[in-house]
Amino acid sequence: MSTLWNHRYAQRTQRMTSSIIRELLKLTALPDIISFAGGLPGPDLFPVEEMKEAAEAVLETKGRIALQYSTTEGYPPLREMIVRHMARYGIVVDIDNVLITSGSQQALDLIGKVLINPGDKLLMENPTYLGALQAFTMYGAEFVTVPTDDDGMVTDKLEDALRCGPKFIYALPNFQNPSGVTMPLERRKVLIHTSDRYGIPIIEDDPYGQLRYEGEHIKPLVVLDAECLECNRNGKYTGNVIYLSTFSKTLAPGLRMAWVAAPKEVINRLVQAKQGTDLQSSTFDQMVTYEVGRGGFIDRHVQRIRDVYGHRRLVMLAALEKAFPDPSVGVRWTRPQGGLFLWVTLPDWMDTAELLKEAVKEKVAFVPGSPFFPGGGGHNAMRLNFSNARDEQIEEGIRRLGRVLLRQIESRRVQ
Amino acid sequence: MSTLWNHRYAQRTQRMTSSIIRELLKLTALPDIISFAGGLPGPDLFPVEEMKEAAEAVLETKGRIALQYSTTEGYPPLREMIVRHMARYGIVVDIDNVLITSGSQQALDLIGKVLINPGDKLLMENPTYLGALQAFTMYGAEFVTVPTDDDGMVTDKLEDALRCGPKFIYALPNFQNPSGVTMPLERRKVLIHTSDRYGIPIIEDDPYGQLRYEGEHIKPLVVLDAECLECNRNGKYTGNVIYLSTFSKTLAPGLRMAWVAAPKEVINRLVQAKQGTDLQSSTFDQMVTYEVGRGGFIDRHVQRIRDVYGHRRLVMLAALEKAFPDPSVGVRWTRPQGGLFLWVTLPDWMDTAELLKEAVKEKVAFVPGSPFFPGGGGHNAMRLNFSNARDEQIEEGIRRLGRVLLRQIESRRVQ
Repeated sequence: MSTLWNHRYAQRTQRMTSSIIRELLKLTALPDIISFAGGLPGPDLFPVEEMKEAAEAVLETKGRIALQYSTTEGYPPLREMIVRHMARYGIVVDIDNVLITSGSQQALDLIGKVLINPGDKLLMENPTYLGALQAFTMYGAEFVTVPTDDDGMVTDKLEDALRCGPKFIYALPNFQNPSGVTMPLERRKVLIHTSDRYGIPIIEDDPYGQLRYEGEHIKPLVVLDAECLECNRNGKYTGNVIYLSTFSKTLAPGLRMAWVAAPKEVINRLVQAKQGTDLQSSTFDQMVTYEVGRGGFIDRHVQRIRDVYGHRRLVMLAALEKAFPDPSVGVRWTRPQGGLFLWVTLPDWMDTAELLKEAVKEKVAFVPGSPFFPGGGGHNAMRLNFSNARDEQIEEGIRRLGRVLLRQIESRRVQ
Repeated sequence: MSTLWNHRYAQRTQRMTSSIIRELLKLTALPDIISFAGGLPGPDLFPVEEMKEAAEAVLETKGRIALQYSTTEGYPPLREMIVRHMARYGIVVDIDNVLITSGSQQALDLIGKVLINPGDKLLMENPTYLGALQAFTMYGAEFVTVPTDDDGMVTDKLEDALRCGPKFIYALPNFQNPSGVTMPLERRKVLIHTSDRYGIPIIEDDPYGQLRYEGEHIKPLVVLDAECLECNRNGKYTGNVIYLSTFSKTLAPGLRMAWVAAPKEVINRLVQAKQGTDLQSSTFDQMVTYEVGRGGFIDRHVQRIRDVYGHRRLVMLAALEKAFPDPSVGVRWTRPQGGLFLWVTLPDWMDTAELLKEAVKEKVAFVPGSPFFPGGGGHNAMRLNFSNARDEQIEEGIRRLGRVLLRQIESRRVQ
C-alpha cells in the first residue's frame, strides 16, 4: 500500500513541512501544561451569547439562504460592513475590492496561487509569519529577507534585497507575528516610497491592527500608499498594496472569517482561484459574523479585548522582570504595543528547540524561534503568547520557564 | 495601476477560467427566471429548525470550544460519526483515515496540491465534473478521457487510456455530475481490476450516493477495491481508492462540510497541505453538523429528500415527454436513478451555448454541455437540475425550454 503512494506525491510536497505551531497545539492540549505556544485568543473573551443570538436570528429569519450555496465573493452585507469598518481606519475602498476568505491563511494561499511562479523570489521580514512561509512554499517561492530590529523591518537594508526583483514584499507592520514589534511611521513611508520606485507590490498582513494597548495608531501601508504624493496617488486607492485582515482576533477564530482588500482586477483573479479551491466560505458563518458585527458590536468588544490582553501583556512583562532580574544573564524581551506575542532572546549559545523539551517536562510551552527565520537565525529566540492564559497562569508559567532557563545557564557556568 | 499587476500573475492563472456554473448562478438569481442551471439542493428541504436547535446547543454547552481554533484534521466526534456512517455503506475505515474538508471542492484542491506535478496526466470521464477540472488545472494537470454512455464510463476503452500512465483516475460512479448516469456493478469491477493491474489509484467522488430514487444500491469502488480477491485484498481497506463525500446534499451546502477517506499516509499529506491552505474548517460548522447528525437524523432526513427529489425527477421526465412527444425530433434525455441532474442531448447541429441566450430571453436557464467535456464534445447537450425547483416550476420551465427548442428546430426546417 505504501509503495503505491510513495512515488506518487507531487514534488511540491517535498518542501511541505507540518507547521510546528499546529503540532505544538496538540502537545500543549495536555491539561496541566501552561502553553504560551499557540496564537490563540482568550476563549473567556469570546462573545458566546452574542453569537448565539446572531445564529438564532439568522436561522430564524434567513435560514434557507444561510444554508444554501452563495457567491464566491462573499455575503454582500458582510463585505459592505467590512468596507465601512476599514473606512474608519482610513482605508477607502468599495465592495468590489473585498473578498471574504476562510481565515487570512486562505488569503495567503490564494495570493500564492494567483501570483507565484515556481522560483519566484518573495521579500520577507526575517523573522516572519510561519503560515505565510508555508502557504507560499507550496507554490515554489524562494525567500529573500530583510532583517528586523525593535522597530520592525530595517528599511535601510530594503534596497539591497529589492535588487533581486522579488514578485512582492510581504509585511506585518503592526505587532508582528512572531516578534511583536511595530514599524514606526517613518519606516512605513520609506517602505512605500522604495517599493513604488522599484515597482514591487506589497502584501500587508494586518490581523492585529485593532489590538493596540499603548501608543498611537499608525497609518497602515495601504493608506500611506494611497496618500503618497511622490507616487502621484493623492489619496486614491490604487492597489499597490493588497491588505489582509480578519475577524479571528476581534470576534473568534473558529468561524474562519477574514478578508482581502485589493484592486478589483486582483480580486477577480482571487475569486476565480477561490472557485476552484472551495467554491465559497460558509454562508452561515458569514451571515452570523455580519449579524454579530452589524450594530457596532465589534468596536465595543475590541475595547474589552484591549483592556484584558493589555493587562495580560503587563502581567507577562512583570513576571519576566521578576524571573530574570539580572540583565547580565542575557535574557531580553520585546515590549509589544499590541497584538498577541512577546519575543524573548536568550544568550547566543542557547538553542530554544532543545530548551523546549526541558520546558515541556516542567509543564510550560513556547514556540522556538528558528522556524520563523527564512533567512536563518533565531535559534536562541522564542515566541510567547500572552492572550490565551489567565494572570495566575502567566505568572506560574513564566516562573517555570525561569527555572528551566536558569538551570541551563547555571549548568553551563559549572562546566 | 493595471499595468502594475498585469505582468505579475502566475502562469497557472492563464489556464484559470471562471466557472460557467458559478457565473450562471448569478444570472439566474434574477427573480423571474426558472433555473435548472445550478446544482442547488432544494432549500425547502433544509432542516432549518434542527440546525437552529443544534447551533443553540453547541453555543450553550461548548461555545468557547466552538469559537476557538481546533485541529486541522477536524472535530473528532464528527469524524467518528462519519466513520460509523460510511460503515453502514460497507466502507470500513477508522478515524485516522478521515479528514474534514470545506466542501468536496476543497478535497479536490488538496488532492491536486498533494499529487499533481505540472504536466501529469489524469484520467477523467468524458464528460466529468467541472469543479474537478478547475481544481486540477490549477496544478498543471493534463486530461486524458474515457468515453461514457448510459452506463457511465465505458470500461472497454479504459486500457487504451491507461497506457499513457495517468497519475490517477477520477470517477463519479453514482448519478454522475453532469450526466446523471450510474456505473453498474460489472463495470465497477472491471475498473477496479484494471486500475489495480496498472497500479493506478482512483479518486471516487460520491456526493450523491445516498440519493437513490430507484433500483438497488451498488457497492462503491472503495468497497469493491477492498473486497477484490484478484488484488489480494480480502475485504481490508488498503487505500487504492480515495473516497470523497459531503453533507452538502444530505444536510445543507451552506456550511461547506465534506470529507476525504484515504490511507493514513495520504491523509497526513492532505493535512499538511490543508494547514498551509486554511489551517482548518470552521470549528462551529463542524460542531453544528455533528450535533444535527448525531442521533441518526441524517438517515431519516435523507429518506425525505429521496421522496421529494425522486418525485421532482418524475415531474421533469413527464414534462420532457410532454414537450417532446415526437422522437424523430431528436431530443433525448437520461433517466437518472438518483442524484440531482438529468442530461439532455439535442440534434447534432444544435449548439446549447447559443441556445442558452435564447432560453434566458424566455426566462429559463440550464448549463450547456461542452465545458464538462475535457476530451471535446457536448456542444449539443445540456445539464438540467431537478432538485431545486418546485413541481409547477419544473413543468413551466420545461414548457418554456420546449418552446425555445422547437422554435429553433422549426426555423431550420423552414430554411
